[in-house]
Amino acid sequence: MTPEDRQYDLIVIGSGPAGQKAALAAAKHGVRVVLIERRQVVGGACLHTGTIPSKTLREAVLYFTGHRLHSLYGSAYRVKERITPEDLTFRVQHVIRHELDVVSSQMRRNNIDMHFGVARFESPHTLMIEHTHTITRLSGRKFIIAVGSEPARPLDVPFTPGRIIDSDGVLQLSTIPRTMTVVGAGVIGCEYASIFATLGVEVTLVDQRHTLLEFVDREIVEALTFYMRKENMILRLGEAVTKIFIDDRHRIVTELESGKRIISETLLFSIGRQGATAGLNLAAVGLEADARGRLQVNDCYQTAVDHIYAAGDVIGFPSLASTSMEQGRLAACHALGLPQESFSALSPIGIYTIPEISMVGETEEGLTRAHVPYEAGLARYAEIAKGQIIGDDSGILKLLFHRETHEVLGVHAIGDRAAEIIHIGQAVMAHGGCIEYFINTVFNYPTLAEAYKIAAFDGLNKL
Amino acid sequence: MTPEDRQYDLIVIGSGPAGQKAALAAAKHGVRVVLIERRQVVGGACLHTGTIPSKTLREAVLYFTGHRLHSLYGSAYRVKERITPEDLTFRVQHVIRHELDVVSSQMRRNNIDMHFGVARFESPHTLMIEHTHTITRLSGRKFIIAVGSEPARPLDVPFTPGRIIDSDGVLQLSTIPRTMTVVGAGVIGCEYASIFATLGVEVTLVDQRHTLLEFVDREIVEALTFYMRKENMILRLGEAVTKIFIDDRHRIVTELESGKRIISETLLFSIGRQGATAGLNLAAVGLEADARGRLQVNDCYQTAVDHIYAAGDVIGFPSLASTSMEQGRLAACHALGLPQESFSALSPIGIYTIPEISMVGETEEGLTRAHVPYEAGLARYAEIAKGQIIGDDSGILKLLFHRETHEVLGVHAIGDRAAEIIHIGQAVMAHGGCIEYFINTVFNYPTLAEAYKIAAFDGLNKL
Repeated sequence: MTPEDRQYDLIVIGSGPAGQKAALAAAKHGVRVVLIERRQVVGGACLHTGTIPSKTLREAVLYFTGHRLHSLYGSAYRVKERITPEDLTFRVQHVIRHELDVVSSQMRRNNIDMHFGVARFESPHTLMIEHTHTITRLSGRKFIIAVGSEPARPLDVPFTPGRIIDSDGVLQLSTIPRTMTVVGAGVIGCEYASIFATLGVEVTLVDQRHTLLEFVDREIVEALTFYMRKENMILRLGEAVTKIFIDDRHRIVTELESGKRIISETLLFSIGRQGATAGLNLAAVGLEADARGRLQVNDCYQTAVDHIYAAGDVIGFPSLASTSMEQGRLAACHALGLPQESFSALSPIGIYTIPEISMVGETEEGLTRAHVPYEAGLARYAEIAKGQIIGDDSGILKLLFHRETHEVLGVHAIGDRAAEIIHIGQAVMAHGGCIEYFINTVFNYPTLAEAYKIAAFDGLNKL
Repeated sequence: MTPEDRQYDLIVIGSGPAGQKAALAAAKHGVRVVLIERRQVVGGACLHTGTIPSKTLREAVLYFTGHRLHSLYGSAYRVKERITPEDLTFRVQHVIRHELDVVSSQMRRNNIDMHFGVARFESPHTLMIEHTHTITRLSGRKFIIAVGSEPARPLDVPFTPGRIIDSDGVLQLSTIPRTMTVVGAGVIGCEYASIFATLGVEVTLVDQRHTLLEFVDREIVEALTFYMRKENMILRLGEAVTKIFIDDRHRIVTELESGKRIISETLLFSIGRQGATAGLNLAAVGLEADARGRLQVNDCYQTAVDHIYAAGDVIGFPSLASTSMEQGRLAACHALGLPQESFSALSPIGIYTIPEISMVGETEEGLTRAHVPYEAGLARYAEIAKGQIIGDDSGILKLLFHRETHEVLGVHAIGDRAAEIIHIGQAVMAHGGCIEYFINTVFNYPTLAEAYKIAAFDGLNKL
């Protein structure tokens, strides 16, 4: 056995959020772990093309457009009259570089072996890593597949750099277009549509589903829809796309089944992502991905092959960095027989549209289906001093609680910092707390967190 | 008895946060309550000269200076090159007007009687209200004194509008001075000092105490001191002021006991506030305020006279709107024999310096004194993606927990949104939660709330 042909307790494929946390959990317990990454650097799509770039772009857009102050200074107000792609990407590159440093040094500090190359199973316990010029073989007792996902690129969409792009192409835009069609109103489609609309781009958002974000509380989605329209976005829901092409006047044409035609300078195609499993040679271990490249796992994140786990985007919904991290950690703990505990049943969801959305626990729709007697209490940021101070008078926070026990069952929020303050409700829920907690608690003044108290009063008043 | 000479179950004097919440709590239970306010409008110092104006000014300064982006674009970066007082006060006036509407309509909706005039006790159960042209007499079964406080104005300080001012005079500044001396480094002094320093004013902060904010965790105060110095603030701690005068060159001179002289264009005098009890004629009810106009109360907010309660700034520390509201509510409930419950032992404290500070629970100093075996876990915003994204790489969150039981004992934070995210720790503490909660919980990514997880890992690693 050459030095490269090492035997590991755990081999993690993919260094995005799931892979990182899996490797760290293993390393902290002193087991022999190796992390394999097909790019030249760690971080995965989350760091290089997904979460981090899009959230930084979002913050830069909010900043340069002065969006948070429009309620006060009028929507014509801008920090910078002509915002260029460089204004936006400068900041994105800065954040990516910094995060890359943080993650790399964390891996080093924890003595996690790293291999940069393309992994391919040779047998259920051995993996071949193709580097640029060499090949390494590693064998492992356990595996975690955390290869993530990539945008689906159907053959009938004429992808063209800078014009007809997928979400990986957003950061390469060399100009800010005047018009954009976004095809696919999932989380990514909605996030980018609202970012570009805020930037002043005329956005048309198309999806064949009749509503946006089906897993989100309806009242919150209706609020989002309202704000999207306020930013001049055109929503074409319940409309299937039949054809996308560039016409002889170099315009991008999107034809809908209804006969409508949407003309735009740019098109962002964001229907579906697929698991990046194609090159793994899963056949060698007796596994098969589904039609969208994804792997099925049980509650312990085990695939059909006991010693091979999967975590993160490659196993599908919710495909969020936050949950992927937890999945990676739990998969590693289970694989190595380490103690584990989790409140992940109460995982919050954060959607970085403008305004941002966050939720934890049950929805009204779910509780209604389950015949749970509940009541809802609502607060509007407009009623809260902090909402006025920061210029967000349109946020909403909604608490759902059991009508008899008063136990908090769900929190749904849209508005500035929603993804932060949701954790307050989550902490109360995780400890089985009741709605009275928010009444009897002192909140810093002025904060958006005060919305909890107002929502609680509103809810209790309805009983 | 004329229609004006009414008999109330509860008379609340002062319509700031304490008075409002006292009146609302009473009104919600259907008792006859009246609220008396000496200004022409409701809201108290909180709304008109204190919390709301200063926090809005702070947000406007952060915005116009582009302060949050200095870590990225360099400290020369500004949204507006020449910021005028009008840029700042426009926003302040807008927020005050809106909040005034919110509070006024809340009082109306709850059928709370209002009297605008100066209240003066005539006997233990009757009050005379002097309006501009008329006088009303009201009698009440119970009273809540929530008259708040006002800046102390020692006779030897030559207050001069626009030049030598107290905190009530900040909003009247007609120019933004080049230099400012702030005498008194309490919460208000520190908040304004850091707001003006961020605006580019050369600030010298003087206090005869040797450290800032003695009730705050030392590590947090040291971080604050560091950031203040970074904004070119000069700190003169442990230095007593002997004389303040305007010299013959129209410069403001502050002489210190050590012989130092500080020259500045403007001086903000912020040593102490005193309870606004002077005109109440407390002698008529057999009460006496202390030398600083404040009233003493027991745990139920009762003064030495059983049927007279006091709440808010008039009873002293912490003199925060948040705690005042809770005091008002609890005082009203106790006075009227209504059911009450409270987690106010876990009241957070929010200090709106730049960066902002928040804390809940015990400090390291307190735990050390009490011989409680504790450990601390620390997270830096620089390690957190969201810190990078929003341009705050200098925040800190510190968790204190019991070394044996792992119970969370305190949370201390400095940095953007500290006053929001502190409530997550507060909710865990209120439910007796342990540090493991933060390890086993999924946090939205990217958020600043993630600091809890990093701090928890750091703390547990030390055991």
